Amino acid sequence: MADKPWSGRFAEGLDPTVEAFTESVSIDGRLYAEDIAGSIAHARMLARVGLLTADEAEAVVAGLRAIRTDIENGTFRFDPALEDVHMNIEVELTRRIGEPGKKLHTARSRNDQVATDLRLYVRQALDGVRHDLAELMRALVDKASQEVDTIVPGMTHLQFAQPVSFAHHLLAYFEMFARDEERVRDALVRVNISPLGAAALAGTPFPIDRGMTAEALGFSAPARNSMDAVADRDFAVEAVFVLSLTMQHLSRLAEEIIIWNAPFYGLVELPDAYTTGSSIMPQKKNPDVAELIRGKVGRVYGHLFGLLTMLKALPLTYNRDMQEDKLPVMDSLDTARACLTLMAGLVRGMRVKSDVARQALQKGFITATDIADYLAGKGVAFRDAHRITGEIVAMLVRQNRTIADLTLTELTGFSTAFAEDVFAFITPEASVDRRLSYGGTARPGVRAAIAEARQRLEGLTP
Amino acid sequence: MADKPWSGRFAEGLDPTVEAFTESVSIDGRLYAEDIAGSIAHARMLARVGLLTADEAEAVVAGLRAIRTDIENGTFRFDPALEDVHMNIEVELTRRIGEPGKKLHTARSRNDQVATDLRLYVRQALDGVRHDLAELMRALVDKASQEVDTIVPGMTHLQFAQPVSFAHHLLAYFEMFARDEERVRDALVRVNISPLGAAALAGTPFPIDRGMTAEALGFSAPARNSMDAVADRDFAVEAVFVLSLTMQHLSRLAEEIIIWNAPFYGLVELPDAYTTGSSIMPQKKNPDVAELIRGKVGRVYGHLFGLLTMLKALPLTYNRDMQEDKLPVMDSLDTARACLTLMAGLVRGMRVKSDVARQALQKGFITATDIADYLAGKGVAFRDAHRITGEIVAMLVRQNRTIADLTLTELTGFSTAFAEDVFAFITPEASVDRRLSYGGTARPGVRAAIAEARQRLEGLTP
Amino acid sequence: MADKPWSGRFAEGLDPTVEAFTESVSIDGRLYAEDIAGSIAHARMLARVGLLTADEAEAVVAGLRAIRTDIENGTFRFDPALEDVHMNIEVELTRRIGEPGKKLHTARSRNDQVATDLRLYVRQALDGVRHDLAELMRALVDKASQEVDTIVPGMTHLQFAQPVSFAHHLLAYFEMFARDEERVRDALVRVNISPLGAAALAGTPFPIDRGMTAEALGFSAPARNSMDAVADRDFAVEAVFVLSLTMQHLSRLAEEIIIWNAPFYGLVELPDAYTTGSSIMPQKKNPDVAELIRGKVGRVYGHLFGLLTMLKALPLTYNRDMQEDKLPVMDSLDTARACLTLMAGLVRGMRVKSDVARQALQKGFITATDIADYLAGKGVAFRDAHRITGEIVAMLVRQNRTIADLTLTELTGFSTAFAEDVFAFITPEASVDRRLSYGGTARPGVRAAIAEARQRLEGLTP
Amino acid sequence: MADKPWSGRFAEGLDPTVEAFTESVSIDGRLYAEDIAGSIAHARMLARVGLLTADEAEAVVAGLRAIRTDIENGTFRFDPALEDVHMNIEVELTRRIGEPGKKLHTARSRNDQVATDLRLYVRQALDGVRHDLAELMRALVDKASQEVDTIVPGMTHLQFAQPVSFAHHLLAYFEMFARDEERVRDALVRVNISPLGAAALAGTPFPIDRGMTAEALGFSAPARNSMDAVADRDFAVEAVFVLSLTMQHLSRLAEEIIIWNAPFYGLVELPDAYTTGSSIMPQKKNPDVAELIRGKVGRVYGHLFGLLTMLKALPLTYNRDMQEDKLPVMDSLDTARACLTLMAGLVRGMRVKSDVARQALQKGFITATDIADYLAGKGVAFRDAHRITGEIVAMLVRQNRTIADLTLTELTGFSTAFAEDVFAFITPEASVDRRLSYGGTARPGVRAAIAEARQRLEGLTP
Repeated sequence: MADKPWSGRFAEGLDPTVEAFTESVSIDGRLYAEDIAGSIAHARMLARVGLLTADEAEAVVAGLRAIRTDIENGTFRFDPALEDVHMNIEVELTRRIGEPGKKLHTARSRNDQVATDLRLYVRQALDGVRHDLAELMRALVDKASQEVDTIVPGMTHLQFAQPVSFAHHLLAYFEMFARDEERVRDALVRVNISPLGAAALAGTPFPIDRGMTAEALGFSAPARNSMDAVADRDFAVEAVFVLSLTMQHLSRLAEEIIIWNAPFYGLVELPDAYTTGSSIMPQKKNPDVAELIRGKVGRVYGHLFGLLTMLKALPLTYNRDMQEDKLPVMDSLDTARACLTLMAGLVRGMRVKSDVARQALQKGFITATDIADYLAGKGVAFRDAHRITGEIVAMLVRQNRTIADLTLTELTGFSTAFAEDVFAFITPEASVDRRLSYGGTARPGVRAAIAEARQRLEGLTP
Repeated sequence: MADKPWSGRFAEGLDPTVEAFTESVSIDGRLYAEDIAGSIAHARMLARVGLLTADEAEAVVAGLRAIRTDIENGTFRFDPALEDVHMNIEVELTRRIGEPGKKLHTARSRNDQVATDLRLYVRQALDGVRHDLAELMRALVDKASQEVDTIVPGMTHLQFAQPVSFAHHLLAYFEMFARDEERVRDALVRVNISPLGAAALAGTPFPIDRGMTAEALGFSAPARNSMDAVADRDFAVEAVFVLSLTMQHLSRLAEEIIIWNAPFYGLVELPDAYTTGSSIMPQKKNPDVAELIRGKVGRVYGHLFGLLTMLKALPLTYNRDMQEDKLPVMDSLDTARACLTLMAGLVRGMRVKSDVARQALQKGFITATDIADYLAGKGVAFRDAHRITGEIVAMLVRQNRTIADLTLTELTGFSTAFAEDVFAFITPEASVDRRLSYGGTARPGVRAAIAEARQRLEGLTP
Repeated sequence: MADKPWSGRFAEGLDPTVEAFTESVSIDGRLYAEDIAGSIAHARMLARVGLLTADEAEAVVAGLRAIRTDIENGTFRFDPALEDVHMNIEVELTRRIGEPGKKLHTARSRNDQVATDLRLYVRQALDGVRHDLAELMRALVDKASQEVDTIVPGMTHLQFAQPVSFAHHLLAYFEMFARDEERVRDALVRVNISPLGAAALAGTPFPIDRGMTAEALGFSAPARNSMDAVADRDFAVEAVFVLSLTMQHLSRLAEEIIIWNAPFYGLVELPDAYTTGSSIMPQKKNPDVAELIRGKVGRVYGHLFGLLTMLKALPLTYNRDMQEDKLPVMDSLDTARACLTLMAGLVRGMRVKSDVARQALQKGFITATDIADYLAGKGVAFRDAHRITGEIVAMLVRQNRTIADLTLTELTGFSTAFAEDVFAFITPEASVDRRLSYGGTARPGVRAAIAEARQRLEGLTP
Repeated sequence: MADKPWSGRFAEGLDPTVEAFTESVSIDGRLYAEDIAGSIAHARMLARVGLLTADEAEAVVAGLRAIRTDIENGTFRFDPALEDVHMNIEVELTRRIGEPGKKLHTARSRNDQVATDLRLYVRQALDGVRHDLAELMRALVDKASQEVDTIVPGMTHLQFAQPVSFAHHLLAYFEMFARDEERVRDALVRVNISPLGAAALAGTPFPIDRGMTAEALGFSAPARNSMDAVADRDFAVEAVFVLSLTMQHLSRLAEEIIIWNAPFYGLVELPDAYTTGSSIMPQKKNPDVAELIRGKVGRVYGHLFGLLTMLKALPLTYNRDMQEDKLPVMDSLDTARACLTLMAGLVRGMRVKSDVARQALQKGFITATDIADYLAGKGVAFRDAHRITGEIVAMLVRQNRTIADLTLTELTGFSTAFAEDVFAFITPEASVDRRLSYGGTARPGVRAAIAEARQRLEGLTP
């Protein structure tokens, strides 16, 4: 009990089961660097405003740096009986440097301290996420630039719809991850606020300078309201939400890769280094990495819901429930970062089989829209053109034939608007290149989009 | 079948159970105004680029306006057999004006049309949410300005921690809703992108001007990639997430109001107009509005997870699963807006009982921190001051006494640093007013925060 | 206010916005039949124990039946100002029959009344779910009995693994839905407990007979603790969970149908009556019903999490938050029932193309395990047999050949254990029929499983 | 690569990042005992049917037991390069005993093996949950038996409703946990099915005896369909759902304890051993254990949603996504077990302050229902009695008086049905003891419920 920072009024010590249940250092030990950075900033501020002498502050800073080195060298033992990372470090500091170690806690509480540490941690990790997103976006645009001329069946409802450039398909994912990157930046603005100096909940009577610590730690400003500063975990929930959307995008891409890679389609071949085999079926080459990425979306969604549940109807200000914030945030960040990195490798390593794509384009009457567009171009109202084409397709289905089998005579039987030029009009290449509307799949447009994407990537560099 | 826009290749009609299952007009009928606005913009653009004549475009615009009037007058009958709001309006338009009605669908698909409509709807509703948030923030700051001098027990762990101004407590919620308002604005940037002209998934061969329709509809830009434009529902999920955080904040405030209003505390009295009674217990005056607000957080969280689930692992581009996007988005917007409005009324109407607050401050040794701070001010290291105070509290608990009962003789027995001035130091008012650190609860700081909050509110006016 | 059952202590009426916010009759109006059944049982019990005269009880019963008829005929107007279904019916009853209508509320509260109504509703709807599950199971077993001899690629990781009978694949879903049916029955045991007579929370001083009302309403027993009786919504959450698993199973089957139906695979053809077309692409025949079923899993998951959130940390006993229980339960039941029914139709209507299956079996080296098994049968340790086969497959991949191209000479080059009988051993049919282990895909086993499934279905009939 | 069980067809090894991403032994290492038990049962069965010799089987069994001992002694090193617990053990076994170790994998795949292991693990852990639930129920009933005569305010809407015995309140939780125990038993029936022998997905050609392994492992039967056997994770989701409801019940009890323990109420005092202090506020005695229990409900809800998400729309049969099943299941079991145990300690250790309860009963007009019941007992229709009492309460509120202050003269002014016996009728004790209806709070009924609860507990002993 003697080591607890709050033992004064207690007659009995904690039950050991309770100690094991309430300790958090097994998780928040990861915050040691942030905790030490926060304490150094706090000590220097205390010295500036006269609450520590310059010598005391130097002793604190040197002591904390030594502890950080020991932690990084693996020679520091975290003790669960000391509850959390803050007490582990503070007790050791006091053991090493004596009185100034105790004074460090002046004008500070664990409530503002832990909020500060977690914000610093999330800030750095989100910067990492921005980097990983940019790497994946780079992989997508690099792959796209190789596959502009690979025409594949574009799908809606997992049905063949219209031919598209494979590069265009990849760039759709570029847009999704670009939005994710924007959301990370927006979230960072709200993460980057300093709770330090809010103390337990009400502020402190000591003449501290919250602006100074905020600036030293790279925060944009101190939090405006001390009660909100210690009770708020919006920044953590928002971070996990942003990662949930990222994981959702990854799950969509993973699902597509798994389908493209399935033997009944075979559009892509995945690199050996990203697949595994079966202990019983020797032929298997399983897209495990894509599957795990797809599966891990559940983990991050789960963390989001866990956080939202924990915070539901929680009265102000700090409540111990909030100790449950760290694991979901940290694991979501770890998970998303690993998945982004592996997806970038998968995208770079996958080989698109253009011959398979070419064969697939024969199926599914994929240029039917072009027939309708052809008619519309000849002055037929689009709804009528659509109906006529539907009837042509129905005939082909009945006769087990494809669009390539159609003759002009047959066509003019459906509409007198058909002429010889229809055949050149409805090749996949013609179909793709005609879609010149902004954002469409025509290859010139796709090439322009690739160039623009590269520029946007450069703009992202932190 | 004849009325379906896609009946050409089908031999049989839809099973009626299937028709009932797949229709969406019972829900997306609410998008009629957005659908008509989108169609008008599309028609004018088609005329500009020569795909409609000026007369045709005028007929379309006039026809659509007449339909809108009929819908608003309640004389328009939506037909579930026509599936959705788009077909209901288009079929009726064609019935009324003939050929130009059919041509309206040129260079457009329901895939880009529905995405456009939903974005317009969400944009307007989120503007409403911004308004409602501002109203609640105004109610909080108005109430705060009346309650600066009401000192209440500030709590952590639902235990009395330190005295705070009730205004300071209310302003903590002001900060939460201010962040919500920021998030709504960030989300709006991503909502406000035009998918119109992406067509089914690949763009269109017609020489359309997507910039013109985007501008006419108030969008900031057309979407960059046609496949992403029809497959993306990030904007809807993000909107529901932002509302989930808002509901979480409302649930926390509702929980506090319910506790404040409970007979064992009695800190506030709620207005009759916001409470209901019991059919069996005549004395009951139940905080139903606060309870329903707290309960409805589940509804919005549920919608968020419904959307996230629906989009998990969904291949590109449009899939019919996405029809399930509208209900959760619309109901989340309705729910959050109603809860915000009622919470503003509740905050304005509740009466804070300062006598109850004053009595409560006698309990729970709430100025113990001040005793520790006093000692620290006399040069005792904070950790030691804390321990000494803990021992004083433990003694009082054993003797069933309060801090008000302490004598100087007793105190000096614990530490020679105590002197007569300790008693003035530890009144609730002195405790509050000493916390002058930025963001703290000292009344001058709170008054400054109120003034600043009013300014921020003015800055929000759309 | 005069009509409210609790207006006595209130000086002011409800704010109209509050009235609209708190009313529930727009949702719980669906409970009218259960409410009336509960009231009839209550009235008869009151008469039995002497709290109503026989004449009063008859007047109540006749009055309630007349109201039920009016509701079913559509001539009854629910008034939101009367809050809920209970008050709407009670006020109308009193208007019609006078004093006995008022007495009906003796020894009863809306707290036990609404719990009773909802349990009756859920009980009946879950019986419906059991029926719908049985119908889908019947569709699966009927289809399976037609497709025993259709050999398809069995998959793990969406990779071809081993040939299986398509019937065997369908029967895997039979097992899932059979477990769902078991879970529904288990849930029903806990649903079927009577809260009636728990009154507001504490029981009642009137000499009521809770066993009599429980029996009259078909409940297995009255709830044992009055506070739990009014605070418990486990039965609702459990029902929605059971439906969530059912929806998950449906989403898996829907996903498979969508993939089977995709043009790149084409294993099945869906009936016109269960598909829709595209407004822009005339060839499309979209698996909308399967997609909507897959999408609606999100709706039910969302309801589950909405309920779990609402109940988190809710103190005893009844709280108004719990009014939010009805919509998620009812909508989950509606959704699951519609999806089960439509899936049964989809299963019955889909046509399996055995020629496509036969071609697919050429791909993916699907009988590689059989080569390994062949070697193991000749005494090679399985891990070695697996490795050898892997090397054979690797060679075929390099040479772009299939298993059918292998010669005995080649094979003996890999292992001397190969002999002429290997070729008969590795046909798909031989592969399937060899898997005679219990639960395996050998056709005799599958036929036995079909027969057993039919028997189990008969055992289910309610 | 040489160690991988599937390296045959692969040219390149796994990327090290991929290896770290795909390994699972850091989590599934906890299944070692189950894995070894499954392998022993499999080996003995293989010997019985002649696929291993008796000597080989003995070597396998002895080897596996030695490995288990080494794992338990901490001398076994799990190697992430060997992916999972299965391969770690099998490779080591083969290293130790040679050829028979390789043969162990005959007629088995990791797909059925991992499902078997996880079912064994969940079965044992759920038995532990049953034990922990019984211990908590025992703590509740023991506490209840001490507190029958403690009358406290029963609440609805967190408003005082009617007086209840505190024992009655505790027994409401007994019922909740009793339902949880039932649900665990129901879930165990579905957990306890053997997938072993389903092999990869299709069964096996080897003449195995699945009934024998099922029986040896204590399963009730082998799974009926091999594809379902390897694809099914219902049992895991159901286990986590059952724990989610348990956590919800714990969160409700924790919330109540936190409120009871708050200084503004003070109904209970928590033991020092279950509370912690504050680093800044010396007087604090925080209900950390109750708060953490309440907060951890989010963790388990999150795991439930994670699993449901992961399984959404997953095609048959095994997919690598399913590797994500173990962490949520194991952590949910750990979390729920710890929370149940600590809650039992908290319930046993908390001291109910009957004097606080007595004072509280003066507030909130808690016997108003009794006044209405009194009038109803004198023949006034309940709705009228309710209205009259409401008017009396409204008068007292206006005059700032309590029910104890009422005179008979005043009362007869409201209704001539009042007489002198009203005062004895409306004491809290009389109010409680009158509620003799089955399940009500009258003390004789509560004592009977306690006796019955003890009997039910005995019936639970495994």
